[in-house]
Amino acid sequence: MHSNGYKPYYAVIFSSLRLSGDNAGYEETAEQMLRLAEKQPGFLGFESVRDRHGAGISVSYWQDKKSIKNWKNQADHLFAQKKGRTLWYKHYKIRIALVEDEYEYIKNDDLT
Amino acid sequence: MHSNGYKPYYAVIFSSLRLSGDNAGYEETAEQMLRLAEKQPGFLGFESVRDRHGAGISVSYWQDKKSIKNWKNQADHLFAQKKGRTLWYKHYKIRIALVEDEYEYIKNDDLT
Repeated sequence: MHSNGYKPYYAVIFSSLRLSGDNAGYEETAEQMLRLAEKQPGFLGFESVRDRHGAGISVSYWQDKKSIKNWKNQADHLFAQKKGRTLWYKHYKIRIALVEDEYEYIKNDDLT
Repeated sequence: MHSNGYKPYYAVIFSSLRLSGDNAGYEETAEQMLRLAEKQPGFLGFESVRDRHGAGISVSYWQDKKSIKNWKNQADHLFAQKKGRTLWYKHYKIRIALVEDEYEYIKNDDLT
């Protein structure tokens, strides 16, 4: 299921519902935060999907809990979190989870 | 961050990219699989978002690894997984992760 070099890592699952309205500044801040997260120690990756109804799931991946805590408390990120609660999100839930196993499927285009 | 009754549980993070094309039968099967999953022992919940480019993240929540394994090997689900690889998905990755912590924000509409 995974290579012998596999080491457990953490996922931060962020499920959210955006407020309707113009959500001024949201896209710009989201982009800035992603660029900033990528520079943090322990950052491993990021995936994000949002649909046209404003529902979104983003998952960021981190080496350990310490790197998640550092990112949570990073000053610019704290400011963005506050703006998120004030201006952009109707609801969100964050789960911190230890990835114990993973497997992947990639379609072989050569055969289609 | 959470109530005293908190017990760790598992998340199955399913990140996928759909094949372009008509993807015949996909919506119906996805709906059937969700209804079936809800009836499995240990099922706790499900969230799913897909955007207009075909990228999706779904997360299902389970009491323990045994219930995840049982669901993975359930007969109708095995058949759907095979159809998924043949007909619907260009790529997917599944991660099984132990949820160690969670917190939630809900906007207080009374104040807005």
